[in-house]
Amino acid sequence: MNAEEIFRNIQRKKSFLCVGLDTDYKKITRMLLESEYPIFEFNKQIIEATADLAVAYKPNLAFYETMGAAGYMSLEMTVNYLREHHPDVFIIADAKRGDIGDTSCMYAQAFFKTLDCDAVTLSPYMGKDSIAPFLEVEDHWAILLALTSNEGSADFEQKELVGGSKLYEQVIKTSSEWGSVNNLMYVVGATKASLLKDIRNLIPEHFLLVPGVGSQGGSLAEVAANGMNDRCGLLVNASRSIIYADGSNRYKEAAREQAGVLQKEMEGALKARGLI
Amino acid sequence: MNAEEIFRNIQRKKSFLCVGLDTDYKKITRMLLESEYPIFEFNKQIIEATADLAVAYKPNLAFYETMGAAGYMSLEMTVNYLREHHPDVFIIADAKRGDIGDTSCMYAQAFFKTLDCDAVTLSPYMGKDSIAPFLEVEDHWAILLALTSNEGSADFEQKELVGGSKLYEQVIKTSSEWGSVNNLMYVVGATKASLLKDIRNLIPEHFLLVPGVGSQGGSLAEVAANGMNDRCGLLVNASRSIIYADGSNRYKEAAREQAGVLQKEMEGALKARGLI
Repeated sequence: MNAEEIFRNIQRKKSFLCVGLDTDYKKITRMLLESEYPIFEFNKQIIEATADLAVAYKPNLAFYETMGAAGYMSLEMTVNYLREHHPDVFIIADAKRGDIGDTSCMYAQAFFKTLDCDAVTLSPYMGKDSIAPFLEVEDHWAILLALTSNEGSADFEQKELVGGSKLYEQVIKTSSEWGSVNNLMYVVGATKASLLKDIRNLIPEHFLLVPGVGSQGGSLAEVAANGMNDRCGLLVNASRSIIYADGSNRYKEAAREQAGVLQKEMEGALKARGLI
Repeated sequence: MNAEEIFRNIQRKKSFLCVGLDTDYKKITRMLLESEYPIFEFNKQIIEATADLAVAYKPNLAFYETMGAAGYMSLEMTVNYLREHHPDVFIIADAKRGDIGDTSCMYAQAFFKTLDCDAVTLSPYMGKDSIAPFLEVEDHWAILLALTSNEGSADFEQKELVGGSKLYEQVIKTSSEWGSVNNLMYVVGATKASLLKDIRNLIPEHFLLVPGVGSQGGSLAEVAANGMNDRCGLLVNASRSIIYADGSNRYKEAAREQAGVLQKEMEGALKARGLI
């Protein structure tokens, strides 16, 4: 899927919502624990409740790895289900990987062949040869951490380098030469929305994956105002505020309601910008 | 396992060798492909051929993830086998993880509870709250990327910050306050051995995990000369040069020979320093 195709899906669904599948065994409704694959069963229900409102899904690998091989199996089933029933959605493996070239090749295979995801989140710390193997797989995306939504982003990401750039700005400047607007996105946390305008100036055309709306407190209106470009250029993620909107057996309806609130706000922002 | 226990194992085995289990389905001997779990079977044979010569094993997660849930199963079997048959070895999940706090808690559970490893490698990019959950698990270790062995380490790790430190030096200075010599190590590539002396001055007592000896061209003698401290303070990893020393059915003997060459050199370095 290239940037234009993502944009067409955004126009069609009037939404740039990404639903984060941070599916925690301990938090899903008790009723599902009786099924053979409760994590997958929960994901399937969430997907069916939100698929017309979302353009992307983002399983968070940690939540599957914590269940070992059985968790990995649930992840595979979830990705396969999305591919089969909702071939238009963009699937992001939120994995924050990155290693020397040979190892990154294996990760690219794990996420783009074995798992059939469209994109994977990556840490830029180890530099170009740790990212290049992901960019070499046609029609697939590397999503680099730039400025994250957590407190610890002050420790290194926001440190100033000799020459005047902050580290996250240097990551964007350097790495944007490695790929194109069709295979490279950046993670920019919604809690740093005021800095989005500067990041937009650095990379006017790249898509940004923006977590931190909802439970982490970021504002969708601010993100849209500062980060939207002529092809929208945003995928805004919400995880817990949607999938755990209600802990009872009403979880599907509650997830749909919460996703709907975000979709309506996104529709307004897209209209205001003249994109739909 | 604390630093003193690792050191006692080093003294007993006269070795600070870590064997990297970067087990690639396409590279293991054909004979094993007939067994039900070929990756595990290969690892078991490598472990049995080298366990008296090595103090640590380091499965590289990418190589297991590329096989999906079945690969994860092989990883679990490998870690369980080590725990049962060689309880003295230090097990490192080479995973390069790191995410916001809640997610890092899940990764800590995945590697320290579900998988029962002693340590996990982590990327420092996202800062303190991405690392803290690993340091909070008693008797377990976070191993932070500092200066890696690949070409891309020049892109960001070696960039100079305002104030005079390179990024990797700042990572070491800042993060060494987060943990202790008993739960925090650093990755320093053997191909950067000349910089090891400066790193030793920054953190005289921490253990360092040093990849890049062997296939990547780093020198063990230089690493020992520049990096050893009074408790050895080094775990030197070799992966491909040991496990793929011979592609035929002689792979076990060849792996043992290669591990033996490194162990002898390590024994010499430990004696020269008066540690055994």
